[in-house]
Amino acid sequence: MLYAGTFDPITNGHLDIIKRGAKRCDQLIVGVLNNSAKRPFYTAEERAEMIALATDELDNVVIDTFEGLLADYVKANDVDVVIRGLRASMDFEYELVMAQMNARLYGDCVETIFLMTDPANSFVSSSIVKEVFGFGGDVSGLVPPRVLDYMQKRQQD
Amino acid sequence: MLYAGTFDPITNGHLDIIKRGAKRCDQLIVGVLNNSAKRPFYTAEERAEMIALATDELDNVVIDTFEGLLADYVKANDVDVVIRGLRASMDFEYELVMAQMNARLYGDCVETIFLMTDPANSFVSSSIVKEVFGFGGDVSGLVPPRVLDYMQKRQQD
Amino acid sequence: MLYAGTFDPITNGHLDIIKRGAKRCDQLIVGVLNNSAKRPFYTAEERAEMIALATDELDNVVIDTFEGLLADYVKANDVDVVIRGLRASMDFEYELVMAQMNARLYGDCVETIFLMTDPANSFVSSSIVKEVFGFGGDVSGLVPPRVLDYMQKRQQD
Amino acid sequence: MLYAGTFDPITNGHLDIIKRGAKRCDQLIVGVLNNSAKRPFYTAEERAEMIALATDELDNVVIDTFEGLLADYVKANDVDVVIRGLRASMDFEYELVMAQMNARLYGDCVETIFLMTDPANSFVSSSIVKEVFGFGGDVSGLVPPRVLDYMQKRQQD
Amino acid sequence: MLYAGTFDPITNGHLDIIKRGAKRCDQLIVGVLNNSAKRPFYTAEERAEMIALATDELDNVVIDTFEGLLADYVKANDVDVVIRGLRASMDFEYELVMAQMNARLYGDCVETIFLMTDPANSFVSSSIVKEVFGFGGDVSGLVPPRVLDYMQKRQQD
Amino acid sequence: MLYAGTFDPITNGHLDIIKRGAKRCDQLIVGVLNNSAKRPFYTAEERAEMIALATDELDNVVIDTFEGLLADYVKANDVDVVIRGLRASMDFEYELVMAQMNARLYGDCVETIFLMTDPANSFVSSSIVKEVFGFGGDVSGLVPPRVLDYMQKRQQD
Repeated sequence: MLYAGTFDPITNGHLDIIKRGAKRCDQLIVGVLNNSAKRPFYTAEERAEMIALATDELDNVVIDTFEGLLADYVKANDVDVVIRGLRASMDFEYELVMAQMNARLYGDCVETIFLMTDPANSFVSSSIVKEVFGFGGDVSGLVPPRVLDYMQKRQQD
Repeated sequence: MLYAGTFDPITNGHLDIIKRGAKRCDQLIVGVLNNSAKRPFYTAEERAEMIALATDELDNVVIDTFEGLLADYVKANDVDVVIRGLRASMDFEYELVMAQMNARLYGDCVETIFLMTDPANSFVSSSIVKEVFGFGGDVSGLVPPRVLDYMQKRQQD
Repeated sequence: MLYAGTFDPITNGHLDIIKRGAKRCDQLIVGVLNNSAKRPFYTAEERAEMIALATDELDNVVIDTFEGLLADYVKANDVDVVIRGLRASMDFEYELVMAQMNARLYGDCVETIFLMTDPANSFVSSSIVKEVFGFGGDVSGLVPPRVLDYMQKRQQD
Repeated sequence: MLYAGTFDPITNGHLDIIKRGAKRCDQLIVGVLNNSAKRPFYTAEERAEMIALATDELDNVVIDTFEGLLADYVKANDVDVVIRGLRASMDFEYELVMAQMNARLYGDCVETIFLMTDPANSFVSSSIVKEVFGFGGDVSGLVPPRVLDYMQKRQQD
Repeated sequence: MLYAGTFDPITNGHLDIIKRGAKRCDQLIVGVLNNSAKRPFYTAEERAEMIALATDELDNVVIDTFEGLLADYVKANDVDVVIRGLRASMDFEYELVMAQMNARLYGDCVETIFLMTDPANSFVSSSIVKEVFGFGGDVSGLVPPRVLDYMQKRQQD
Repeated sequence: MLYAGTFDPITNGHLDIIKRGAKRCDQLIVGVLNNSAKRPFYTAEERAEMIALATDELDNVVIDTFEGLLADYVKANDVDVVIRGLRASMDFEYELVMAQMNARLYGDCVETIFLMTDPANSFVSSSIVKEVFGFGGDVSGLVPPRVLDYMQKRQQD
């Protein structure tokens, strides 16, 4: 099972999906998209490090980075299920389009499944975390504690 | 894995979800909700018969009927995953609310996962099938052929 | 060109679509759906009379009533274009499904086209008109003046 | 300030809006709509009693029942602000239409203001509470404790 | 009461919200966000000047500019109510997320309230005004007359 | 009749709208917006060439490029109907706003009409085509065959 994204940085919403996915499969790959065109704030390595800190206690989670099309990564790694989180209608429209496109590219061998986010995390996104954190606002409760530590140290460098 | 609904009648959209779900689990229960308050057109038995006709070739699909809360059925049968189909934003809002409610009622032991419908089936629903069929319109291509036969025979009774 | 609906009663929103449609075709049929299952407040004849009052000055508008499937009416009358109004996202989802269903039933010979309602009428619907009018509220400005007269006379009978 | 609705029964989502509204005004009227056409499960008196139990500690909340148009109640009671809760996009579309209609009926003297529900209550509605409770499911946490007691006693009668 | 935004430039939709808000409070602060990352077309000073021209006749409106998080401005200025306008479902999703985030950052002391825009202004936004104006199109009726004068003079400089 | 857009590149979704529009009018102008601010991947000339390849067999389609406001092009060319495709709710919200803005700019002489996309093309957009194609993914079936040839040759230059 694969959970792919930019994770810039990983939030409590992402972590909830990771935990719920990992519970239902043998191994969950968290795939960090290394897409410089998206101009992420943290490098792919930093993002992977933060995910590692957040998922430390989950034995069947492995972290990987990839470039290019998700469909190519999926084929190269024999992924059979891709997992996605859904927060709101606007997520839905985008995810529907991506799922239908990916169904074309993957063929029948891969299924995309969606989990609804916990209502408590429904307003949390990486971009809002970065915006609030960037202006010195409090994002504890939105990201895992060890990720917050990482972000604070990184800010002081 | 459980796929529950009214299935009044089963459509090609439902069948697509059943096939994709059955592929990813040991056994898929198709649970037919026997809710007289919803005033279904076909009885729960008829609806189960049509599902049986449509899923004849799928070895790991079993069909059951139930009353009352989905959460109670889920607990009584040790279901660990409930599967749902998503067609459009309006589905999404309703499904989000139900998933969040069910997460409260189920606890952590059960996960609801969602599959996006194939775009070719995105406009198909049991109610539109019944309306068109009721006025003598052509619903072949919207329901499985053996279900259409069943509906036509039933209409002549 | 056909503009079909329940028109229970015709509103200023409907009239705006009728005027805009009639301007772009040789003849616009306003088709009043006679569907007793929907339990309209006014009879199909009353609804047709109100449309006649509202469209009195439009030379190329004819009014008809029909039962059953729109697709059957369309075929029987050689309609080539069906026109619909869109007010909000919720309209859109429903209309998308109906348009895709009708494209199956009509085949290529008929096209459904949509007009966006004027923002001033975006909140007007037959059901809100009936609710407000039923409690004695002011609906002038929501329905054509001659339709309001008709509703008031009908109420006193 | 007025908060009107059916409250069949009052939920924690309603109570959150009541508390937040009461904090920002001198007096908050909770107006219980007595609309037999909507076939509420509890009578208007029962619904008012449950609200009274839930708002016992809020000094500036008064409870009233009314029939007919909200706009008429608003005028008769010199209400200057009507408060509404918003949970999801589907709420939004409906509320937008009602607010625009009411702006017509009220004139300038009354303003409708909206509060977004707390994410923890975003999936709670009276209808889902009734459905789950009716089948013996657990609705504690969805309604105030004293309302749950009331519902349980009422059920045993 | 605070109404914050980019106002690049102020539109008739904004002005409608300002007027309705100012009517319901002692003092309405219009807070102009000075966020260079958003690359506004007009400087914060120009935007404040245009708001001043548009709100000249409203006695209890004051104009301020701020940088950084809204939550910090709100705390520093003892704001108790933040007001927002809602136009369409897409606004809604975004506003819901921001309101839930801000509820976390503000705590209980601040409430965000929403007003639905007048249907006549539902399609008006600063970005569409800038696009149409930039190509020489007519935006009278979308912005206050004195703001249009300002924009035209500014264009000739 | 005018169908305007960026067409960067033309997709099967666009071509479906072109075919359906061309069937209902004497002449369909496909207007290619030459807007450098949008940073299209292909030049306006390349985009027009691809449309010419895709519409080769449609006798009443002419291709043109334009800059600036659609409303100005519409007036200068005596266009009476502008045609648009609708795929999903998010399209709808944007298109509603543009249609209402354009109704202001055009006046009564021009009508915007909308066609719902074929469900099979509902997930196809120029941007997803470019993203998948750019990473070497398979976009046959998403764009017309001769357009795919063009894109492949262009890539090798």
